Amino acid sequence: MFRDLGVRVMQLTYNSQNLVGSGCWESRDGGLSDFGRHVIDEMNRLGILIDLSHVGPVTSDDAIKHSKAPVAYTHCCPMLKQHARNKTDAQLRTIADAGGFVGFASYTPFLPKGEDSTLDDCVAAMDYLIDLVGEANTGIGTDWVQGQDIGFFNYLSSDKGKGRSTATPHKKVPSMPTGLETLGNFRNFIPAMERAGWSETRIRAVLGENWLRFLGEVWGR
Amino acid sequence: MFRDLGVRVMQLTYNSQNLVGSGCWESRDGGLSDFGRHVIDEMNRLGILIDLSHVGPVTSDDAIKHSKAPVAYTHCCPMLKQHARNKTDAQLRTIADAGGFVGFASYTPFLPKGEDSTLDDCVAAMDYLIDLVGEANTGIGTDWVQGQDIGFFNYLSSDKGKGRSTATPHKKVPSMPTGLETLGNFRNFIPAMERAGWSETRIRAVLGENWLRFLGEVWGR
Repeated sequence: MFRDLGVRVMQLTYNSQNLVGSGCWESRDGGLSDFGRHVIDEMNRLGILIDLSHVGPVTSDDAIKHSKAPVAYTHCCPMLKQHARNKTDAQLRTIADAGGFVGFASYTPFLPKGEDSTLDDCVAAMDYLIDLVGEANTGIGTDWVQGQDIGFFNYLSSDKGKGRSTATPHKKVPSMPTGLETLGNFRNFIPAMERAGWSETRIRAVLGENWLRFLGEVWGR
Repeated sequence: MFRDLGVRVMQLTYNSQNLVGSGCWESRDGGLSDFGRHVIDEMNRLGILIDLSHVGPVTSDDAIKHSKAPVAYTHCCPMLKQHARNKTDAQLRTIADAGGFVGFASYTPFLPKGEDSTLDDCVAAMDYLIDLVGEANTGIGTDWVQGQDIGFFNYLSSDKGKGRSTATPHKKVPSMPTGLETLGNFRNFIPAMERAGWSETRIRAVLGENWLRFLGEVWGR
């Protein structure tokens, strides 16, 4: 039904445990459930991309192993700072080895400098990511929630949107990186990538062409 | 709300994984979730008995450890035969050591002789159970579903009552032990217990007095 309604990307869990497996904020990751394997088989059959961004590490590795189609961390950062949402080098290599994709999230709580992060810090983190997973497997998955208030962030960190707090609660809405204050600044990625010495080929690939190719492969199955 | 409606006993899972933990038919038991710990705290606060009969072994041990009130396997058998619903000696000792309770289920698929089991086989299995957990921690939890058809059994073995089959499906409704064909035969336990050499004190305790004492303790908290 959701596919008929147009859904083509779904996360297996959101922060906490659900019927499929464990989220990245669970104290202990119990791995993919039997129902979870059934869900993945069905998503493979329907050509729906499996997103592991908010999924726990054990459940993620189980899902990468079980899925016949490549999967994605659509919006995450490498573990340049300890954070439940960041992915270790080993996790990033595992998904890339299985033909999977990683979208870089320019969300300041994930970055080493936090709210002091700039657009150039984002490009440096993307360089780190590309070194691990390869240029062809890297894109942007901003994780921006522009125009939302603290109530929305508290909703996000409540179990299933209404239960106890499952993640460290935010005291205020996190600021965006300097140079990327609004969605309208997305184009600023280009000069920052040029400053970092990226070729036009790499810039075009990471800014969008990789996503188009990858999504075409998964959705077209 | 359920407590206000009169519910005083709840299972944490039923065969498969849910938001609380893993059921006893799950391929892998991921243990109690963070939400599961929250559920147990609340059941403790409200004086609702935690039943682990259909719960997986890791989740059961987690729950026994986490609960401040004693818990129960209300209807199960010792592992005299390999079966997902039977409990090992170690599991039975663990619950008894924590002040928990075990109700013996006179359900033939759990017993070594299967549908050839008699009332005397039930009493022998209860003797085995008493040796492990003690006379004071043992009662009867029949698990009888008298008057139900195969459709009801298929419902029971479907995930959440409507999903894929989570347990080995039944081909027919399992027969009751010889001598215990109907609920009206419950009184036949008494002569069988006498044949096994049980004292009147033990018979009264296991037939009902133990349950009354234990439930009074849990519900009265």
